[in-house]
Amino acid sequence: MRGNRVAVLSPVAWRTPPRRYGAWETVASNVAEGLVARGWDVTLFATGDSVTSGRLHAVVARGYEEDSTVDPKVAEYLHISEVFEHAHEFDLIHSHYDFMALSYTRLVQTPVLTTVHGFSSPRIMPAYEKYRDGYFVSISDADRAPGLNYLATVYNGIDLSLYPFQPSGGDELIFLGRIHPDKGVHLAIAVARMSGVPLLIAGIIQDQSYFREQVEPHLDGTIRYIGPVDVAGKNALFARARALLHLNTIPERFGLVLAEANAAGVPVIAMDLGSCREVIREGETGFLISDVNQAVRVLGRIPEIARGACRRRVEQCFSIETMVEGYERVYRAILDPGHTTAADRAVL
Amino acid sequence: MRGNRVAVLSPVAWRTPPRRYGAWETVASNVAEGLVARGWDVTLFATGDSVTSGRLHAVVARGYEEDSTVDPKVAEYLHISEVFEHAHEFDLIHSHYDFMALSYTRLVQTPVLTTVHGFSSPRIMPAYEKYRDGYFVSISDADRAPGLNYLATVYNGIDLSLYPFQPSGGDELIFLGRIHPDKGVHLAIAVARMSGVPLLIAGIIQDQSYFREQVEPHLDGTIRYIGPVDVAGKNALFARARALLHLNTIPERFGLVLAEANAAGVPVIAMDLGSCREVIREGETGFLISDVNQAVRVLGRIPEIARGACRRRVEQCFSIETMVEGYERVYRAILDPGHTTAADRAVL
Repeated sequence: MRGNRVAVLSPVAWRTPPRRYGAWETVASNVAEGLVARGWDVTLFATGDSVTSGRLHAVVARGYEEDSTVDPKVAEYLHISEVFEHAHEFDLIHSHYDFMALSYTRLVQTPVLTTVHGFSSPRIMPAYEKYRDGYFVSISDADRAPGLNYLATVYNGIDLSLYPFQPSGGDELIFLGRIHPDKGVHLAIAVARMSGVPLLIAGIIQDQSYFREQVEPHLDGTIRYIGPVDVAGKNALFARARALLHLNTIPERFGLVLAEANAAGVPVIAMDLGSCREVIREGETGFLISDVNQAVRVLGRIPEIARGACRRRVEQCFSIETMVEGYERVYRAILDPGHTTAADRAVL
Repeated sequence: MRGNRVAVLSPVAWRTPPRRYGAWETVASNVAEGLVARGWDVTLFATGDSVTSGRLHAVVARGYEEDSTVDPKVAEYLHISEVFEHAHEFDLIHSHYDFMALSYTRLVQTPVLTTVHGFSSPRIMPAYEKYRDGYFVSISDADRAPGLNYLATVYNGIDLSLYPFQPSGGDELIFLGRIHPDKGVHLAIAVARMSGVPLLIAGIIQDQSYFREQVEPHLDGTIRYIGPVDVAGKNALFARARALLHLNTIPERFGLVLAEANAAGVPVIAMDLGSCREVIREGETGFLISDVNQAVRVLGRIPEIARGACRRRVEQCFSIETMVEGYERVYRAILDPGHTTAADRAVL
């Protein structure tokens, strides 16, 4: 099976891997690099400035979020069609490109596996319904749509070498993510206010009016916004963190940042919505809460969390290797269904 | 050649034909109906509420501009891919769907002809450049991009029965089109102000701030805005018209409304930009001007235009029949290049 030719189709909003923000591109990169490390023949379809140890195939020079001369719609159509025009060169296409790529799948012979990184709106469901018989992977058991032909849940894997274990943290609360109501920045601010613990907020501002109205007025010496951060910036935050606050207001699909924080040894206080209870183990790597008051209460219990246990859980469940092993089982089920082992089937 | 199976791919912004606004859907409808009338086996790919004397194939129930529950991006991908998934059922696909449809053309055997209804932005040119070797038709000689494999210019044709000849007009100036700076509504208002001739403005408001700032403040008893109009509304306007003012500020691609006004016998005063000089014959069916002062001056010369000559020119050059004959020559050149006649070649 290894040695087979796989095309990994990444989005072109950002470079793969992204410089700062870009969860889908991060995962696509981790999949590509993990597959290369395990001997697969990998071609990454991504922006021209992307970086891979596999082969890079690019028709869009730079991400449309990073270059205003690029029309997003043109970039998407050109980029997605390109992989399908080369479909015969591959044994499998692994798409990270949402419903758009599905619309080309019936025009080629090559099987296409789609990792669904999230259903952005009920209005996109008609596209999934049409192609429901395709091959799908969910990134958490929570984030599944009924009726799709799911072969497995494969949790996202992070590059553990990027997030070194930090045996002792600091005294601050941290928020890491898009500044958007979905991510509950206002709730993190409320927890900081009520508890008197300082809060550091980092991330791109995706909703300007939300930032202006519900974040900015609260900024002072205790609650601070430091803009978007790269990996080094994240690690600097983890070094100062007592806990990561992740008080999402809608069901989380996976929650990469939860795994990143845990990898560094940082306990997580997460809203019990969507995938959070799959990523965080209650009382072991953090706490699952259902409102702000509860979040304030569990702050006092943070010392119960062993930082080493946080790291170990990510090593076991959310490493690139674990993720790629998961995808290898799925690839085998598609490419060679007769030879899927009992062990594979048990896991799938 | 007739009897061959043609798929006509219309946009899904609006119903085909549109209830009011929707130039591309209008032309796609006219092509489909004209082909059916001449014996072709036509399948129209359009919204589910579309109307055709051919076969209707629809996966999107209603136009995304008419139904807010429809996601435009989902509708486009599902609609466009559908025709390509059925490509083997057709001898030719005639696309009116811009660059998006091009991205599927290399995945099927069936030849695809694209009528380019306009290049909306320089940022879409990379898509046309990639697929430049496809088959293209321009809707005016003016609206061509260098390097594309154009087989012909085929002028848009209108349904002359919808716009009956009106031997005598009225005393008002009329503007018909999108309320958008590109269409020069503010220039039409200036002409009305300077000449003292009343102006009736009709059309959808596409640019709200333009309407608020440059149209609305000028509305009074003499300059009036009456909203969008359907075919009956257009004819009512034509009955009251001394002339149609079409003072576009960017090159016109074709200008359906010029042909519609002329069909009713209404002379046209048009900015000499883009296709206007192909549609309007100077001094015979209207006047081509280059600024507002000149537009005011030629108002006095409107009586020189014979209303019957306007009608005759549309009958000859911009009827559905003329358009469909043009497309038949192009279809023959694609489907049976060895048997294209000398007469065809002369016209192509």
